[in-house]
Amino acid sequence: MHFFDGTEYGADGALTLAARALELRAGATPRAALGKRLAAVFLNPSLRTRASMEAATTALGASPQIIQPGKDAWSLEVRKGVVMDGSASEHIADAVRVLGQYADILAVRAFPSLVDLEEDRAEPVLSAFMEHAGVPVINLESALYHPMQGLADTATWLDHLGPDLRGQPITLTWAPHPKALPASVPNQVLLSSALVGMDVTVAHPEGFELDPQLVARAEGLAAAGGGRVRITHDQAGAMKGARVVVAKSWSGFSGYGRREEEAAHRATLGGWTVDQALMDLSDQAGFMHCLPVRRNVVVSDAVLDGPNSWAFEEAGLRLWTAMALLEKMWGGAR
Amino acid sequence: MHFFDGTEYGADGALTLAARALELRAGATPRAALGKRLAAVFLNPSLRTRASMEAATTALGASPQIIQPGKDAWSLEVRKGVVMDGSASEHIADAVRVLGQYADILAVRAFPSLVDLEEDRAEPVLSAFMEHAGVPVINLESALYHPMQGLADTATWLDHLGPDLRGQPITLTWAPHPKALPASVPNQVLLSSALVGMDVTVAHPEGFELDPQLVARAEGLAAAGGGRVRITHDQAGAMKGARVVVAKSWSGFSGYGRREEEAAHRATLGGWTVDQALMDLSDQAGFMHCLPVRRNVVVSDAVLDGPNSWAFEEAGLRLWTAMALLEKMWGGAR
Amino acid sequence: MHFFDGTEYGADGALTLAARALELRAGATPRAALGKRLAAVFLNPSLRTRASMEAATTALGASPQIIQPGKDAWSLEVRKGVVMDGSASEHIADAVRVLGQYADILAVRAFPSLVDLEEDRAEPVLSAFMEHAGVPVINLESALYHPMQGLADTATWLDHLGPDLRGQPITLTWAPHPKALPASVPNQVLLSSALVGMDVTVAHPEGFELDPQLVARAEGLAAAGGGRVRITHDQAGAMKGARVVVAKSWSGFSGYGRREEEAAHRATLGGWTVDQALMDLSDQAGFMHCLPVRRNVVVSDAVLDGPNSWAFEEAGLRLWTAMALLEKMWGGAR
Repeated sequence: MHFFDGTEYGADGALTLAARALELRAGATPRAALGKRLAAVFLNPSLRTRASMEAATTALGASPQIIQPGKDAWSLEVRKGVVMDGSASEHIADAVRVLGQYADILAVRAFPSLVDLEEDRAEPVLSAFMEHAGVPVINLESALYHPMQGLADTATWLDHLGPDLRGQPITLTWAPHPKALPASVPNQVLLSSALVGMDVTVAHPEGFELDPQLVARAEGLAAAGGGRVRITHDQAGAMKGARVVVAKSWSGFSGYGRREEEAAHRATLGGWTVDQALMDLSDQAGFMHCLPVRRNVVVSDAVLDGPNSWAFEEAGLRLWTAMALLEKMWGGAR
Repeated sequence: MHFFDGTEYGADGALTLAARALELRAGATPRAALGKRLAAVFLNPSLRTRASMEAATTALGASPQIIQPGKDAWSLEVRKGVVMDGSASEHIADAVRVLGQYADILAVRAFPSLVDLEEDRAEPVLSAFMEHAGVPVINLESALYHPMQGLADTATWLDHLGPDLRGQPITLTWAPHPKALPASVPNQVLLSSALVGMDVTVAHPEGFELDPQLVARAEGLAAAGGGRVRITHDQAGAMKGARVVVAKSWSGFSGYGRREEEAAHRATLGGWTVDQALMDLSDQAGFMHCLPVRRNVVVSDAVLDGPNSWAFEEAGLRLWTAMALLEKMWGGAR
Repeated sequence: MHFFDGTEYGADGALTLAARALELRAGATPRAALGKRLAAVFLNPSLRTRASMEAATTALGASPQIIQPGKDAWSLEVRKGVVMDGSASEHIADAVRVLGQYADILAVRAFPSLVDLEEDRAEPVLSAFMEHAGVPVINLESALYHPMQGLADTATWLDHLGPDLRGQPITLTWAPHPKALPASVPNQVLLSSALVGMDVTVAHPEGFELDPQLVARAEGLAAAGGGRVRITHDQAGAMKGARVVVAKSWSGFSGYGRREEEAAHRATLGGWTVDQALMDLSDQAGFMHCLPVRRNVVVSDAVLDGPNSWAFEEAGLRLWTAMALLEKMWGGAR
């Protein structure tokens, strides 16, 4: 089974993995996966994701391998049926078919173009991996999802809010940023929190809507899990009662095809920076961000370095949640 | 002993390694080489070679290390006796002398310039490695040879044609490509198939001759092994009776110093693409290519993805043949 | 405890580590550190340092990880309190805080700008690592120091000069080079030799002074250890009586802010190349250089490849001294 959007094991599965991560962090002995191999393909930069996957793999006694097409390996073609007389040396289907014979798990990071909505929605890279790998594929952040981050976030919620996350109020707020960014992280926060039945509020300026297909899916998950999803343009109002505040910048679903206009709009939204005055409106919420974060643009130093910042614990849990997932994928049930 | 052109262990040695690779693929336990270290230096991109060497090394319990001069390490000077006041920070002899003290095996990939024939023939990088390493050196594809590919090809032949390869008809055909490519792969196909006594036909357009020194050497090996080598410009005729068809583009031996002229000539040779109609002329031959492959330029999708394509099995065998070779180099005879 | 400038364990500690390295090279069994992880961050190229750290880590049964911000990971901001609306995606403090949760030791290479003296002296990268890592930090060469090289040099001295290094005459000479280079290596040679009480002579042209703060510190260490430090502009005179000659180019302390002028001056100093005639003035001194070295610019081929060259043994000892240090950091006292 692939791990593509983080809902694959259901709410119970996600909570079990998150709980196991907290056990591992507390000193539980991991179930070894000696002789196993994970090959991780990065089409984009990575610090936490790569470092935590490598560390988790070696912590189980298995061997990680990092591949960067276009840097250390051949550049890849993703279109099907094409006459390959351009710059790409290898078709992604072929590269994946080969790597799947060398490793027990493939993992891949592939950011979206932010140019063509339907292409991004089709997830051409992840789709090719899942179709051709012949072994389980882990999504290390794609156009739409970032499930390894979602698992670490779930473990962070569990650690601070206790075992029953149903109905817990969480607010995801848009934040300023100098560049147009993918929506994979906000999508994932929404999915992962809805999956475990939290009461989710998303605050963003007009024009920065998330993909309505994704929102509808999150609403369905939340309803099934005992929670709900609410969208607002009122950032301050969205803080009321929140026990968790997650900040992230993203490019609007409607921004496809009009990036310059969106950039001009974004430049007027500096007031959305998360600062202490804003956090004070919440119910002593913990502050979360997936990192890397633009300090004093997305969030003030005071909040990020303050006593209610969970961002560094959240990043640390990337290691333990990755171990929990790999344990499960390699070791099966205990 | 170095592994430079794949003939080092003779025909019996190559067949024994190939057979061992098939055993390992079938589940035989590899002989561990705990605590051993392989350092692989890449002066050019790699997917299969790097991934299979890393995986094979860790599969034996040993540790691989990847070094990319000019990217993560210092750029290298290869000329001897030079005053190093240019851009290169380190002499290759010195880098090799150092790395040879850190690892039990060195491996290196170094493509040719395709500009200076005598320089390419001298294999300056591989020569420096073999002279200064102080430990065995494995060629991961040089100007003239690609012996790890040759070993995987031999295992593929063994798997499909049975234990006695003498007299088995194999055809190596030139194929179109947007760029001028080295002849290391066709050279290796020729050497490796001649070594085990196959009946080898090489088909290429006029002007795309292989190095006559190499061809003469292959003829000698074939004669000693019970096979023969035949060169033709008739691609269709070369298919007749073939049990194996290997496709590959290469730059002609005579193309040195006249690349533009060759490129213009190459642009007229689109008809050499291997398609199903061509394959139908053979004796139900398996199709092979070392990958990466330009789809619908070198070979049609239908052939590469068809039931007689051995290309992905061939790539998969890179892992098991690498394990077999490392077992032998590190573990000695059983 | 961090390993920042190589004096952290005192003279006895440095000598003990160097002696242990010689034992390990002679075949002593290393103390395993199974399950431990070292993450090494390279902001600049590296061959020996990276390869020896990786090899030493795996030789102890631990797992190394290499991270290259700006290449495979996010580019880093080093200034504190800044509004991060520029090109850097992540603050170094945050990256370090995260990596310190994934590894048991962090290591980092960060060359100086050679533009701003006070910034270089402040060692912004190393300082951030030591402040935020939460685990021991190893300096893999910074603006001011190169302690892993210093340890290998100490082991080389011990191997050739015997256990008591006090009063042993060593000469560090400036050498020509096409580029302005940091002073980390000469600083380290000075510190490491002074630490163990050697009689140190530094020869350099006028205008290529080392940092007076560093020289004063070395004088203090030498005085405490039974040695002394002498500075001269007379390269030939400095050879007299030397048992060790270390060559290295560096940019002058006073060269900050006037690089073009220094480059013009440097171009007139070709006579400082270390050749056999110069070495003949010494007391059959061994020749050392940290590598990479510009052949026939810094030193002649004849000296570097001659019978009194210790440069390749010195490089080889990088492996064994790294193992000795990691043993100590991970395993504690025996």
